[in-house]
Amino acid sequence: MDIDSTAQDKARFFAGAWGRVKALPGKLKAKVTSTAKSIKRLGQDDPRRLTHSLKVGLALTLVSLLYYARPIYDGFGVSGMWAVLTVVVVFEFTVGGTLSKSLNRGFATFLAGALGLGVDYFASLFGKNGEPIVLGILVFLLAAAATFSRFFPRIKARYDYGVLIFILTFSLVAVSGYRVNELVVLAHQRLSTIIMGGATCMLISIFVCPVWAGEDLHKAIASNLEKLATYLEGFGGVYFQSSESDGMGTGKSFPQGYKSILNSKSSEESLANFARWEPGHGRFRLRHPWKHYLKIGALARQCAYQIEAINGCIGSDHIQGSEEFKGKIEGSCTRMSAECGKTLKALARSMKTMTDPYSSANTHVENSKAAMKDLKFALKAASLENADLAAILPAATVGSILVEIVKCVEKISEAVHELSQLAHFEKETVEPTVSPEKPPQLLHRGIIQPVLDGDGTANDNVVITIHEIISTDSPENEKACDQHQVPKPGKKIEAL
Amino acid sequence: MDIDSTAQDKARFFAGAWGRVKALPGKLKAKVTSTAKSIKRLGQDDPRRLTHSLKVGLALTLVSLLYYARPIYDGFGVSGMWAVLTVVVVFEFTVGGTLSKSLNRGFATFLAGALGLGVDYFASLFGKNGEPIVLGILVFLLAAAATFSRFFPRIKARYDYGVLIFILTFSLVAVSGYRVNELVVLAHQRLSTIIMGGATCMLISIFVCPVWAGEDLHKAIASNLEKLATYLEGFGGVYFQSSESDGMGTGKSFPQGYKSILNSKSSEESLANFARWEPGHGRFRLRHPWKHYLKIGALARQCAYQIEAINGCIGSDHIQGSEEFKGKIEGSCTRMSAECGKTLKALARSMKTMTDPYSSANTHVENSKAAMKDLKFALKAASLENADLAAILPAATVGSILVEIVKCVEKISEAVHELSQLAHFEKETVEPTVSPEKPPQLLHRGIIQPVLDGDGTANDNVVITIHEIISTDSPENEKACDQHQVPKPGKKIEAL
Repeated sequence: MDIDSTAQDKARFFAGAWGRVKALPGKLKAKVTSTAKSIKRLGQDDPRRLTHSLKVGLALTLVSLLYYARPIYDGFGVSGMWAVLTVVVVFEFTVGGTLSKSLNRGFATFLAGALGLGVDYFASLFGKNGEPIVLGILVFLLAAAATFSRFFPRIKARYDYGVLIFILTFSLVAVSGYRVNELVVLAHQRLSTIIMGGATCMLISIFVCPVWAGEDLHKAIASNLEKLATYLEGFGGVYFQSSESDGMGTGKSFPQGYKSILNSKSSEESLANFARWEPGHGRFRLRHPWKHYLKIGALARQCAYQIEAINGCIGSDHIQGSEEFKGKIEGSCTRMSAECGKTLKALARSMKTMTDPYSSANTHVENSKAAMKDLKFALKAASLENADLAAILPAATVGSILVEIVKCVEKISEAVHELSQLAHFEKETVEPTVSPEKPPQLLHRGIIQPVLDGDGTANDNVVITIHEIISTDSPENEKACDQHQVPKPGKKIEAL
Repeated sequence: MDIDSTAQDKARFFAGAWGRVKALPGKLKAKVTSTAKSIKRLGQDDPRRLTHSLKVGLALTLVSLLYYARPIYDGFGVSGMWAVLTVVVVFEFTVGGTLSKSLNRGFATFLAGALGLGVDYFASLFGKNGEPIVLGILVFLLAAAATFSRFFPRIKARYDYGVLIFILTFSLVAVSGYRVNELVVLAHQRLSTIIMGGATCMLISIFVCPVWAGEDLHKAIASNLEKLATYLEGFGGVYFQSSESDGMGTGKSFPQGYKSILNSKSSEESLANFARWEPGHGRFRLRHPWKHYLKIGALARQCAYQIEAINGCIGSDHIQGSEEFKGKIEGSCTRMSAECGKTLKALARSMKTMTDPYSSANTHVENSKAAMKDLKFALKAASLENADLAAILPAATVGSILVEIVKCVEKISEAVHELSQLAHFEKETVEPTVSPEKPPQLLHRGIIQPVLDGDGTANDNVVITIHEIISTDSPENEKACDQHQVPKPGKKIEAL
């Protein structure tokens, strides 16, 4: 029995071990496959990553020639190492990043080298014994002061790397000067190899498949506007229809792309920072107003916060609202969000084509404002005798936040328009995609017009224009005014 | 006349120049004063910045001793430079940052050095002519592959610097091996100087006024909760009172501290990343659940988004709501936001003292939920016959978003509780600051109790517990249940 069981155990052990060994290649294969897949996905998400990697390899191989080519090597000696070091440390994904680091490194090395030489000379005046002490104190003070300066937000944003290299080079020159007598030769060698490495990086990053930080920023902002637009265009339909069918919030069927905008601040800021180092490229001149993109980005985030609040309201479970009330505001709410979406789409398109967005976007802005007023009238007109406010609340809140979104989108539209003037966007040709059809709510507005003046909020434009063109403001005249103004895309429409 | 005017011109020119020269020291003085002030402010905002600068200076001076001390210099020669370089590049503000960079640098140098030696040997097999070609190809391939790997989010977060140093060292060793024959000696020297520099940094950053990333993260999250609390505690009073007095939104008088939370994601993530490199320190053990802080941080941001939406509603100009309606919901809304604020204050306090927040925070959570129910009843009871929905809307929206905030705060409370279990926070002693007084809305609730079951949303807890303890649910019994449960902090209260 014992022998039997031992034999069985052994057999079982070997069978298990063999099973594991047999399974090993399978596991390994699965692991390799999954890694390969994630590599492939990474490359497909942004093929420029692959190009960037090859560019770094190229730059490094080129700079290594310094070592292989005997005449160059004899000129630089071990300093050729600094060229390799510079390439590895300085080559960034975007042209702006590479330029910023290269220039920072070059200038900082030059300044710190000169200062280090001066300090060396100064310390040598104190004799063999005093020199290390003086040098030590100076290195301590300068390193501490320079490190502290890195906490200044302005220096941190633009010259952080430069200050780092300044401390580095200064310490190296000041300290090594105590030993090496040919400091000037060394400093010259170092500086020229760094320039060589930096120049290689700059040339390759600019001329071989360049990735411009400015262009990236431009596209990122435009795509953020588009994400907001996608949500808003789909919102009305999904919200009102889904709640009609199942009475529950179906937050999951909404496109959630806008969520990435919520945390976009730091990446936008670093792109804008890099973009300022870049020369003019493509459709962007040297002094393109990159800072203005941050303003648009901030407004887009503002809008995303509002959408997040709406999304929270929808996703939560207190959405058993009164269908009757929802039906009443459905029209205006759907129109508000759809027109906001169209505005943002138009703005994104105009940014992409770099044309002035005024005419195409403004029509939609005015449409959305009109829908906003409609909502107000719908709310005023809604009979509430037998309604339950708690049931009305969810939909009413959505409406209220949509009002905020309309305002936010208007600000975005103004900001993009401002950008188009600062950056000299082309004037837009009249596009067929702009829907010049008269919004169906005009009848409504005409009827309740007498209340308008007391409304106060976003009416100023309308009222002013009416007074300018026609001095009375009876419903018929306003209608005439609307008809007079809508069919003129391409001109500044003051009111709709 | 001509001479006169020339003389006058000259006199005027000199007077102007003199004026400018006289003004120069003043301007310079003003400039110097303003710079000094901003330096002082920077230091006062966070005195650790000054300490950090001094620490860097100290580390650098210590490492420079390598050059001054003849016996050590003879051992390392020019390689001593690498120690200086390491200190400058590796010393970060937080201990975690310094450790992460030092360890990355050390291991990457070791690995890359070993690989470089192997590649050198391999290339030497191809003879004098083949060697540079083989080395060039290998450097290109490895640099490209390593650069690509930096795009993987996981590698980017933790080993980015290590990969950089890997590429750097590998290229240097592989390339310089073609020239320098004493590669092993060089590699050994380099590695030991790097270890020396890295060790200096690590020791100084850990033992001289350490700045722990983990502690910073802990404090940052607690202070974020506090900022939210400050807003919410003040909200009710400011919103309802200011609107009673002037009828306008006074968005500016609200504390805007919460705005910094909106964009806190990246800084929290980097702190959490660094914290994982840190050894146990103070009240934090080695494997403190740093990742969980990110969850709380995300929920706090969620709450900040909601507050941003409320703030938008208040700040905007459509706030001419009906005072009558506002008065009706004032009580419950003020209580909701105040109780949310108290919850968050309690959570922040419990994080700071590292005690289990359950009993203190939970009372407030339950109070805020009760106030939420009150709001629903107030809404149901509100007579809407002669009310104008458009006028009601702003206040109703505020109430609706407050409901979302209550839910969000409850989630935060759960997350902090979870953290307290994961991190083994101490059990809380009964604190006198927890107000055990019965919330004044209980009477209300008792009266409208029969409606409760149809309400559905957050009632589940209440109903279950009541059934467990007392099988009937008449108003009196629920009151008894409340009285039975509130005065027991320290136990899990299922319902209030």
